[in-house]
Amino acid sequence: METAEFRKHAHELVDWMADYLERVETYPVRSQVRPRSVIAQIPESPPARGEPFETIMEDFRRIILPGMTHWQHPSFFAYFPANSSPPSILAEMLTATLGAQCMSWVTSPAATELEQRMLEWLRQMTGLPDPFTGVIQDTASTATLCSILTARELRTGFDINRRGFTSPDRFALYCSQETHSSIEKGAKIAGIGRENVRTVPVDERFAMRPDMLEEAITRDLRENIIPLCTVATLGTTGSTAIDPLRAIGEICHRHGVWFHVDAAFAGSALILPEVRWMADGVELADTVVFNPHKWLLTNFDCTAYFVRDKGALVRTFEILPEYLKTAGTERVNNYRDWGIQLGRRFRALKLWFVLRSYGVEGLQDTLRAHIRMAQALADTIRSSADFELLAPCVLNLVCFRFHPPGVTDPARLDTLNAELLERLNATGKLYMTHTKLNGATTLRLVVGQTRVEQRHVNAAWSLITDTARSL
Amino acid sequence: METAEFRKHAHELVDWMADYLERVETYPVRSQVRPRSVIAQIPESPPARGEPFETIMEDFRRIILPGMTHWQHPSFFAYFPANSSPPSILAEMLTATLGAQCMSWVTSPAATELEQRMLEWLRQMTGLPDPFTGVIQDTASTATLCSILTARELRTGFDINRRGFTSPDRFALYCSQETHSSIEKGAKIAGIGRENVRTVPVDERFAMRPDMLEEAITRDLRENIIPLCTVATLGTTGSTAIDPLRAIGEICHRHGVWFHVDAAFAGSALILPEVRWMADGVELADTVVFNPHKWLLTNFDCTAYFVRDKGALVRTFEILPEYLKTAGTERVNNYRDWGIQLGRRFRALKLWFVLRSYGVEGLQDTLRAHIRMAQALADTIRSSADFELLAPCVLNLVCFRFHPPGVTDPARLDTLNAELLERLNATGKLYMTHTKLNGATTLRLVVGQTRVEQRHVNAAWSLITDTARSL
Repeated sequence: METAEFRKHAHELVDWMADYLERVETYPVRSQVRPRSVIAQIPESPPARGEPFETIMEDFRRIILPGMTHWQHPSFFAYFPANSSPPSILAEMLTATLGAQCMSWVTSPAATELEQRMLEWLRQMTGLPDPFTGVIQDTASTATLCSILTARELRTGFDINRRGFTSPDRFALYCSQETHSSIEKGAKIAGIGRENVRTVPVDERFAMRPDMLEEAITRDLRENIIPLCTVATLGTTGSTAIDPLRAIGEICHRHGVWFHVDAAFAGSALILPEVRWMADGVELADTVVFNPHKWLLTNFDCTAYFVRDKGALVRTFEILPEYLKTAGTERVNNYRDWGIQLGRRFRALKLWFVLRSYGVEGLQDTLRAHIRMAQALADTIRSSADFELLAPCVLNLVCFRFHPPGVTDPARLDTLNAELLERLNATGKLYMTHTKLNGATTLRLVVGQTRVEQRHVNAAWSLITDTARSL
Repeated sequence: METAEFRKHAHELVDWMADYLERVETYPVRSQVRPRSVIAQIPESPPARGEPFETIMEDFRRIILPGMTHWQHPSFFAYFPANSSPPSILAEMLTATLGAQCMSWVTSPAATELEQRMLEWLRQMTGLPDPFTGVIQDTASTATLCSILTARELRTGFDINRRGFTSPDRFALYCSQETHSSIEKGAKIAGIGRENVRTVPVDERFAMRPDMLEEAITRDLRENIIPLCTVATLGTTGSTAIDPLRAIGEICHRHGVWFHVDAAFAGSALILPEVRWMADGVELADTVVFNPHKWLLTNFDCTAYFVRDKGALVRTFEILPEYLKTAGTERVNNYRDWGIQLGRRFRALKLWFVLRSYGVEGLQDTLRAHIRMAQALADTIRSSADFELLAPCVLNLVCFRFHPPGVTDPARLDTLNAELLERLNATGKLYMTHTKLNGATTLRLVVGQTRVEQRHVNAAWSLITDTARSL
């Protein structure tokens, strides 16, 4: 494709993109296709000769689009959002055009230096203390793995990196029952083993109980198991529970345990001074991760990973073969040594575009509106006769279920709510997901999409109540 | 930013993007900025209020652009390319707009099913045998780590995932002296240890010597070290050496050693029947990785990872918390369980756009032109009085040095070539990198950029000879 053609098609595409964003709420939120209906429409073999862009684009509209779940739909209330925004999309267009590989300073100085500054901005915005240094990772899963690996290496004097696991020592990780699955995944990858992940019980707010953490650590110490790392969660996936960082951090310090804070979703909210209470004690952490790609209007993937000791991180990962040596760059960061992958996209650009386009106050306004709408919905549910909240609404996630008066059988309630959820999602008018809290099937409604307005929450609530009462 | 503004700015941006691609060769290839000159121009704190897009874009042009190394410049002969192409950029624009998070089938059915089909296309195009199943990873580093982890788990009956390293068993990995640094990184992360990475000597073509591999395996067996995994390289980073897959594979099979093929760069060339000789024996491999984001005109990141036993891969990584359970999707892939990250971008779309826009023949034409230009340059060097080839030119990487008659001191030759390289790169007219081959400083010139034409290679060679002879 010549550049002149590219220009023409890209202009057409921009109109399609803007039209899409304008009418995104007319699509079914969750794709309505059946398994294998998309693949059945794609030829089994690639074409020998090139095809015109119009044909490809027509197939995109006809085959792919109906198969998409629309994460940018304002009535996307499922999982946690993976938000984008117009300035972020514009930056992604530039990133794709420059096509730079940002593994080392020399392979893209501006990408490296902008990344450094953007993470300084994010650190200030979220009130993280000064000693933290940031780097962009792809996902919180990867960042948490990096944290576990750094803990492992510091604890063993970098001996596992050097010689592998050679001693009979066993290590343990600590997190709550409500912790994200990536901790278990990280424990497996790092050679710790999932049986050595202690899932500490939670309190009635689904937050980790520090007394039970200390008990678990003490038990391991008695059995000569080395307490390696505690992962506290700021905003669990199930219910955005807030683990008490200060109490956990003090226990970790007392026992020499590495302390990682997984704030994947809720970390973005730390730009609001009024919710900073939840980060009390974060200065005790060794590492902190949160995802601007969730709730800070920045396209996936963009994870902000903060470390107190960047030397330990780099020493865990650095490798310097001849073909990567570059002279005179001692004063700069080479981010290839700050994580698992060698190759890196220019992800700082979209952060820059987003943070400048909205400004701190613009982002605060957006998040406050989300929280306000969610809290109002929680109030409605609290005063409802046939719905009930199943967890505190800490920020913008409402955990609830349909509970018609007189129905007391837990299994019946689970079935009823699973059926309600499936009926709702099948309408295509909203998308919610579920979790289990205290064993009960729980509907999760996250008010966090970039474009969500009060009318979408109102419409969702009407649909939920109407559908439930017709079951 | 409202959608109407987005439409306006996106159209402006498209013109900038097309202009950029048209005049990309007028920029210095390697950025000419000094360390910290970019960050010094970015305010230390984020703005409180939003700024107009024009201001941001003006800063992008003024501050960021001079700090970029232009990977899409036709005279980018450094490292291996990270190619993009117009259809790939168009697809990235759509991916950013849809903003879908493709971790599970249900979170984006079309992304999952298109990914499955695109990897089937790539498998056919590269002549990989039928039993291989593909999945997109971000980088070859990650894919190789996945392979090492799968080998580790299969070998131990998934016991390390479960209980961690508990036995005193030690494991060894095998690769050649010329292998990519990601193998060592993977060995560290997986808990094998870098001292247990055996770097097998190479032959005069820098390819792994199978006899020495077998010797290394035998030695480890004698010492009760478990030979876990061999990584053969199809196209080493230093000189695109081709390890003999069949001989290596047979040794691996004989000793029950997992066999991973790292074809990160050269794998794309397997779309050319005339170079398939280099993959002879690939059917013996357990896993194969190559990067369409290097030499198949597809934007970074896009790594194709093929596994013979997808059950083993999934069993190594799968975790199913309640909030990810979805009903009725047994017949589909949930790619979150096929690797390290939970979150995933919609990366199959750009592959689809590229493979259809060029067709197999169009891509073959592009790669053949690159190889032809590189081979012609190698011929020129071979017949030159003061330059010499330092490795066979297998595909499109020319490894050479300036060697004026009469200079015999190896250290003097190294200094001379390091100086030559720095002078060349400082002109901004081309960008090459170096490696060491048999201890000698070697200039690497890869003819592989999407836009490179014979005139760029000619200009590079003129500049190289003129600069060298003026030293």
